[in-house]
Amino acid sequence: MRVKGKQYRTVWMEGETVFLIDQNQLPFKFKIVKAKTCRDTCLAIKYMIVRGAGAIGAAAGFAMAQAVLEGDRERGRRRIEATRPTAQNLFYGVERVYRAKDAYREAQAIADEDAGGCKKIGECGNKLIKKGARILTHCNAGWLAFVDYGSALSPIYAAHRQGKKIFVFVDETRPRGQGARLTAWELKNEKVPHAIIPDNAAAHFMSQGEIDLVIVGADRIAKNGDTANKIGTLEKAICAKRYGIPFYVAAPTSTFDLKCKSGKQIPIEERGQEEVLYQAGLTKSGKVEKVLVCSPGSTAKNPAFDVTPVELIAGYITEKGVLTPKSFRTARHHRL
Amino acid sequence: MRVKGKQYRTVWMEGETVFLIDQNQLPFKFKIVKAKTCRDTCLAIKYMIVRGAGAIGAAAGFAMAQAVLEGDRERGRRRIEATRPTAQNLFYGVERVYRAKDAYREAQAIADEDAGGCKKIGECGNKLIKKGARILTHCNAGWLAFVDYGSALSPIYAAHRQGKKIFVFVDETRPRGQGARLTAWELKNEKVPHAIIPDNAAAHFMSQGEIDLVIVGADRIAKNGDTANKIGTLEKAICAKRYGIPFYVAAPTSTFDLKCKSGKQIPIEERGQEEVLYQAGLTKSGKVEKVLVCSPGSTAKNPAFDVTPVELIAGYITEKGVLTPKSFRTARHHRL
Repeated sequence: MRVKGKQYRTVWMEGETVFLIDQNQLPFKFKIVKAKTCRDTCLAIKYMIVRGAGAIGAAAGFAMAQAVLEGDRERGRRRIEATRPTAQNLFYGVERVYRAKDAYREAQAIADEDAGGCKKIGECGNKLIKKGARILTHCNAGWLAFVDYGSALSPIYAAHRQGKKIFVFVDETRPRGQGARLTAWELKNEKVPHAIIPDNAAAHFMSQGEIDLVIVGADRIAKNGDTANKIGTLEKAICAKRYGIPFYVAAPTSTFDLKCKSGKQIPIEERGQEEVLYQAGLTKSGKVEKVLVCSPGSTAKNPAFDVTPVELIAGYITEKGVLTPKSFRTARHHRL
Repeated sequence: MRVKGKQYRTVWMEGETVFLIDQNQLPFKFKIVKAKTCRDTCLAIKYMIVRGAGAIGAAAGFAMAQAVLEGDRERGRRRIEATRPTAQNLFYGVERVYRAKDAYREAQAIADEDAGGCKKIGECGNKLIKKGARILTHCNAGWLAFVDYGSALSPIYAAHRQGKKIFVFVDETRPRGQGARLTAWELKNEKVPHAIIPDNAAAHFMSQGEIDLVIVGADRIAKNGDTANKIGTLEKAICAKRYGIPFYVAAPTSTFDLKCKSGKQIPIEERGQEEVLYQAGLTKSGKVEKVLVCSPGSTAKNPAFDVTPVELIAGYITEKGVLTPKSFRTARHHRL
């Protein structure tokens, strides 16, 4: 996508150097980090300069290519795999490049496939969007989470470019605020009309007939269609159902986990309570500072994901078309 | 209620002075403001040192009593009524004291009635709470919003004092965070076990069978039972319905507006977007500072309330018992 008039991907490689948009600095600063060695790229993954399934997979592939170019395949592999050990795409990226004859080309291919898949998600999803549609999205499943285009936001970009005059309601997505910080930043950057809303407000706008469609991303989709995604997705899906608003999940087919029978088998990560108790933001003096936003001494619970049951989901927007759980088996991209 | 071992109300009068807990300083500082004149008390109402329907009504009554004692009835009345012109209880408090033979006694009576009514709400609501119940509440309908006890929190305090070993899930309640700031402060103060959760997380805990009961307050209850309350109440009610969890509204009968036929007639206040874009909190250095938590240049929408339709509400916990819409007409406390 374009930032300040220039085309960018979230992560790319030139020569032996990996370049990454520093997502820790967004939305307050747009900065590119140069990772000259495999070790540098590992640190970038570990400290979440890059985040999101697709973007992590590509960064891991590039890091593995750096390790090969540095003549240190085995140590490099171990180092990369230790950065974020629960990221499925990281292992996929490392494995493919590790086994390839031409590590550099293979790493580029992974990034290109991610971007190409997301572009197709946009084309498929765009067909579901009517002129003037008002769309709700949750969290950030935009190009910053992939190499380019994104999943949930890709159909939105496609519809906007086609001049459909859409409007996007952006859930703030507490506690980490990926909607308010990253999705809003992406949409402003692409000049897509939008407004940030508190996570509490979606049902109100639905009840007023102000939302036509919901599109969210996914962290994992079980064989039966149950979908794990950012906390709050379930609430939006339940409310959308009540008001008869179609609720779509947009994700590459690599997100399907056919070994996982239903959402009940998906473990929910409980993250630190500090994410709820404190919030980081820009002070008047232009510094990013963490402030306590809760009553001192109270504790918080912070489940990072929830599971939306299949019956609340209208369909799955993938690079292979809009699917139903019945079509998962044939469509699944068996990449490993 | 007790704070640091001493009994307090949110607002009270001794001699000619009105005392108020400074709710702008909570939860980071507990401070009592002394308002020596009617003018001082008006400023306290205007700048939200006192907030919440019941507490505002009592403060307005005390301010009117001050005006009478100062020999300046007419100007005092106009001054008080100009502070927060949409607060229904404010006009009620002023009117009663203005007309009374003994202004001081009448103002005390208003405060006592508010506290007594809320205490009864606690007794009625307590009957709905089983031992070990896990209760969700939204926003702050605690004693800080009234003169004492509160509405939604009053049954919780009654159950806790009876040793029922309850646990309270406290919705953060973005954008203003009244749950995280005020409800959590109240519960900690009363040693009621609780945890703050992001507004996104309630449905997740409901889906896991971790919530038995929801109790919220109300800003206005229409004749048919539709209830306006803090934004996000509707989402919780829809989710509670899906999981078969009883959803109760706790409010004094003065909250019923029988002139309002249904929720469709209740106007929804749209507040400034700054409340969404910025958040105030305590910095490391102990100062309260506002920080920007959204992408710079994006706009936000900020509806302050939503309307929960009657079919999602299990009952209305009032000082006259647990009501259904059918029993509203006879129970309504026609005070003016």
